[in-house]
Order: sequence, then C-alpha cells, then structure tokens
Amino acid sequence: MNEFLWPVRVYYEDTDAGGVVYYANYLKFMERARTEWLRELGFEQDALRDEEGIIFAVRAVEVEYLKPAHFNDLLNVSVRTLRAGKASVTLTQAVVRDGQTDPLCLATVRLASVDAATLRPKAVPGRVARAIAQTEQTAAADSSATYIE
Amino acid sequence: MNEFLWPVRVYYEDTDAGGVVYYANYLKFMERARTEWLRELGFEQDALRDEEGIIFAVRAVEVEYLKPAHFNDLLNVSVRTLRAGKASVTLTQAVVRDGQTDPLCLATVRLASVDAATLRPKAVPGRVARAIAQTEQTAAADSSATYIE
Amino acid sequence: MNEFLWPVRVYYEDTDAGGVVYYANYLKFMERARTEWLRELGFEQDALRDEEGIIFAVRAVEVEYLKPAHFNDLLNVSVRTLRAGKASVTLTQAVVRDGQTDPLCLATVRLASVDAATLRPKAVPGRVARAIAQTEQTAAADSSATYIE
Amino acid sequence: MNEFLWPVRVYYEDTDAGGVVYYANYLKFMERARTEWLRELGFEQDALRDEEGIIFAVRAVEVEYLKPAHFNDLLNVSVRTLRAGKASVTLTQAVVRDGQTDPLCLATVRLASVDAATLRPKAVPGRVARAIAQTEQTAAADSSATYIE
Repeated sequence: MNEFLWPVRVYYEDTDAGGVVYYANYLKFMERARTEWLRELGFEQDALRDEEGIIFAVRAVEVEYLKPAHFNDLLNVSVRTLRAGKASVTLTQAVVRDGQTDPLCLATVRLASVDAATLRPKAVPGRVARAIAQTEQTAAADSSATYIE
Repeated sequence: MNEFLWPVRVYYEDTDAGGVVYYANYLKFMERARTEWLRELGFEQDALRDEEGIIFAVRAVEVEYLKPAHFNDLLNVSVRTLRAGKASVTLTQAVVRDGQTDPLCLATVRLASVDAATLRPKAVPGRVARAIAQTEQTAAADSSATYIE
Repeated sequence: MNEFLWPVRVYYEDTDAGGVVYYANYLKFMERARTEWLRELGFEQDALRDEEGIIFAVRAVEVEYLKPAHFNDLLNVSVRTLRAGKASVTLTQAVVRDGQTDPLCLATVRLASVDAATLRPKAVPGRVARAIAQTEQTAAADSSATYIE
Repeated sequence: MNEFLWPVRVYYEDTDAGGVVYYANYLKFMERARTEWLRELGFEQDALRDEEGIIFAVRAVEVEYLKPAHFNDLLNVSVRTLRAGKASVTLTQAVVRDGQTDPLCLATVRLASVDAATLRPKAVPGRVARAIAQTEQTAAADSSATYIE
C-alpha cells in the first residue's frame, strides 16, 4: 500500500459562513481516513480497544491550509506512514479534490499508542506494528510526494 | 426561576455555507443551556453520573426553525420545565437574538433519567427531582409563552 | 425508489463521553442522506443554488432517539417522501444499524424550498418537484413502515 | 494586554467516546478565543468583513496535545501575538484547566488577512494592524511562556 486514499464528500455540516470547509473539520476528515486505513490493514479500533486495551491518541498535528474546499466537493484524503515507533506512529496526510493533484490541505500527524484505561503509552501490539511497518517501507521507496515536516 | 436564560455567541464553527447557523447546532446550544440550568439548580452532571449513577439522555426533540441566526450573533437560549416525571423531564427551549423578542428557534425536549452504565430508565434522584419540580410550578404560573408541543 | 438508503460509519467525531453518538449528530447523518437522495434523483444542491437560485432549508424536525449508536457502527440512513408541496417537502428518515431492522433513531423532517439570496419561500423547480413527487407515489404504495408524525 | 484569556466550558458536544475532548474541537475553542481577543481589541469580524472586506483565514496550525480535557471542565484559552506582518499574524495559544497552570494543549496559529470575496492576501487595515502590533510589543516583553514553534 503505497498510499491509502479515502473519499470524503463535503456536506453543509462541514462548511462555515465563509463558504468553505471549516478549518477544524479537516482534522475530522483525516481521522476518518486513518480509521479506514487501519481497517484496510485489518484492524478495527473498537476491537483494539476492547481486546488489546489500546487506543491511538493524537499527540501532535501540523496542518497547512493551502486552498479551500467547498460544499459538495468530493475529496480524497491520503494516509502515508512517515515513521513507526514502538508506541507511536507518525503519518502524513493530504486532502486533494477528486480529479485534481494540488493538495488543499497537508498534515503531519503524530499518534501515540496508549492504554485505553490509563491513557499512558503502551507498545503497539506486534501484529499491528508489523502491518504498519510494511506501509512504512513502501512509503519510503516512493519519494514523489513532499510534505510539511 | 421563571425561565432560565443562557447566552451563546455564534462563531464560525456554528455556521454553514448558507451563511447561517447549521440546523443541528441549535441542539448543541440547547444542551449547553440545559447543562447550565442544572448547574444553576445546584447539580453538576459529572457528579450526578459519578455519585448518583445517572445521566440525562435525550429521548425526543421537536424543533421549529423560524428565522436564521448569523455569524457573531449573540443569542439567548431559554429553558422551561413543561413536565417533570419520575424518570423523565420535558422542557421547552427557545433561541432568541439578544435584545429581540421573536424566537429564531423553538424546541420541546424530552429527557430520560437513565442508569449511567446500563442506559436503562432510573428515577431522578429525590433532591434533583424536587429542584426541577419547583421550576415546573413557577413555569405553570406563567402563561405568556407559547411553544410547539 | 421505495426507500433511499445511505450508509454512514460512526467515527470518534460523532460520539460523546457517554460512549454513544451525540444526539445532534444524527441530524448530520440525516442531512447527508438527504443530499445523496437528491443526487440519486439527479440533482446537485450546489447547482440548484447557483443555477435555479434555490436551497432547501429545514423548517422543522421531530426526532425520536430509541437506541444508541456506538463508535465504529455502520449505519444505514433512509429517506422517504411523506408529502411533497409546492415549496416544501416532508420526509421521514430512519437510522438503522447495518444488518439489523430495529431503528435507532426516527425522524420527520420538513424542508422548505427557499430563495438562496432572500431565504423566502420559492417553488421547487418543476423537474425537481416531478422527481420528488414520483418518490412520494411509490412511498404511498408501501405501508410497511411506521414513523413518528 | 500581556495575554488574553477566554473561558470555555466543555460540554458533551465537545467530547468523544474516549471520554475526553475530541482533538479537532480544541481548534474550535482556540478560534472562539481569537474572536473574543479581536473583539476585546475593538474589532468585530463581521464588521471587518462587511466594511473593510477582509477576513482572517487560518493558513497553518501546529498543535501539541499534552493532557486530555474532560466533560464539564472549565478551560481558559489564551491568545498571544508572536509576530504581526502586513497581511498575516502568528499567534500562540494555550488551553489550561481553570485553576491549574500546566497546559493541556499548545498551538501556534498562522492567520492570513485575505480579501473576503477573492480570498487573496490583503493587508490588515491600519487601525487593526496597530492594535495587534501593540499586543505583540507587550508579549515580547514577557518571556515567561514557552511555546512550540
């Protein structure tokens, strides 16, 4: 998986009186894509929480807003693994209008694997870590994209 | 307390590309007012949950959208007790622009007191029920407002 | 089209600290389904606004919350035409967990067709009205569902 | 004005099934504080848009999530001017639980002043620029806070 893509339609709920997608809502779109990326890798987050006792918490985000998205736009939100650590994963994500190439929004997102009860760092379970590491290797081989860092 | 009022400022987050407050967001404003109304009566919802094991869950809402609210508007959201039952409370709420009298939005909201763990109906704790019943009596004495039912 | 169905996945953004979908967010799910229902009928809302000068504004909603939806649930949101008027449409909508039949949430939603600039009532354009009227006829023939009214 | 503070109460709408404030919602809290900071400086954003033809658009954010906020928490959100340019302003913002000192969330937010119609860069109006520049000078004199950059 070089790059995972998840389609997101812009509804009225996502826009603001400026006529464009409200800046906080891109973080919702990105979290949807991350959830679907994990599902594609074979992991349901409710099962990870209930069976492995871990949840992925966002520790830091860096977001660049380049061009606005509008009501009714169909967007594609990407997920790429930048670094996978023992109890953390750093991803880069882009929001691109369907059929276009220039990103509207770029982000780097640092996730921590934490204990679902105590919220303290807890190692990513082995099979999850291995699946994510594989996306990292493929991502490293592809140098076509530039992201904020 | 004839009628409880809670001020709400409209920020960009609340509006949509139509230039007005998004219809679902009035329900957020109304829940903020209900939370502050309970606080005014002396009850913190996190304490009710942690100490009495109950939460108030919304069972039904009826909302009429009469006029739009806009970015930067200062609104007042009211709470009135229509009926207080053993494990339920029905409230009427209105959203009015500050300094005006015509409501922008009217609602009837039926809440159920439920067990925080099982989400099954559970009687409103006595001291909470008594405090709410008192707001009901005063509301009944005041017939100036008409609400949807 | 007896009944239009639109799938909605529950993400963290949709839930609250009670562990369930926040009550206002069902209105977002329902609006997504209405948007996709209109698209299925052949109408893009941004084109209706820009070319015909009309938008559909919600005038009233009645919502019954029957059972909670949870994080990661896959839901289906239905749209059925109850009544189609000159400048208004009344729909019934249900939210059902995928693979189940009992609704979690039922709603009746009254929409007004309004001028995009003045927000005053404006007749639904003919071709849109005809397409909606057809969904009304089929819905009338099917009496299997009971909705709040 | 060394540092502007705006109180924000956490309601159910702000939390997620993890029991904490949803990560995107801190951006809403921060925008509320920025709006009130501009109001405190004497500027209403709807007047700036309607009379001066400018809006402040977010170009970039960097957010660090340090500790979670919970339902019913009372938070204080700060605004500090880091740099004021011709058509841009960079602010640092912190979210702190009322009565505490350790931040839950820190952010750097870069705003661009843009033409309300074209969304292209447009110089901050003189009187607004002067008011913001004054907050910059005072902030510079106070070196007690460390923020992410």
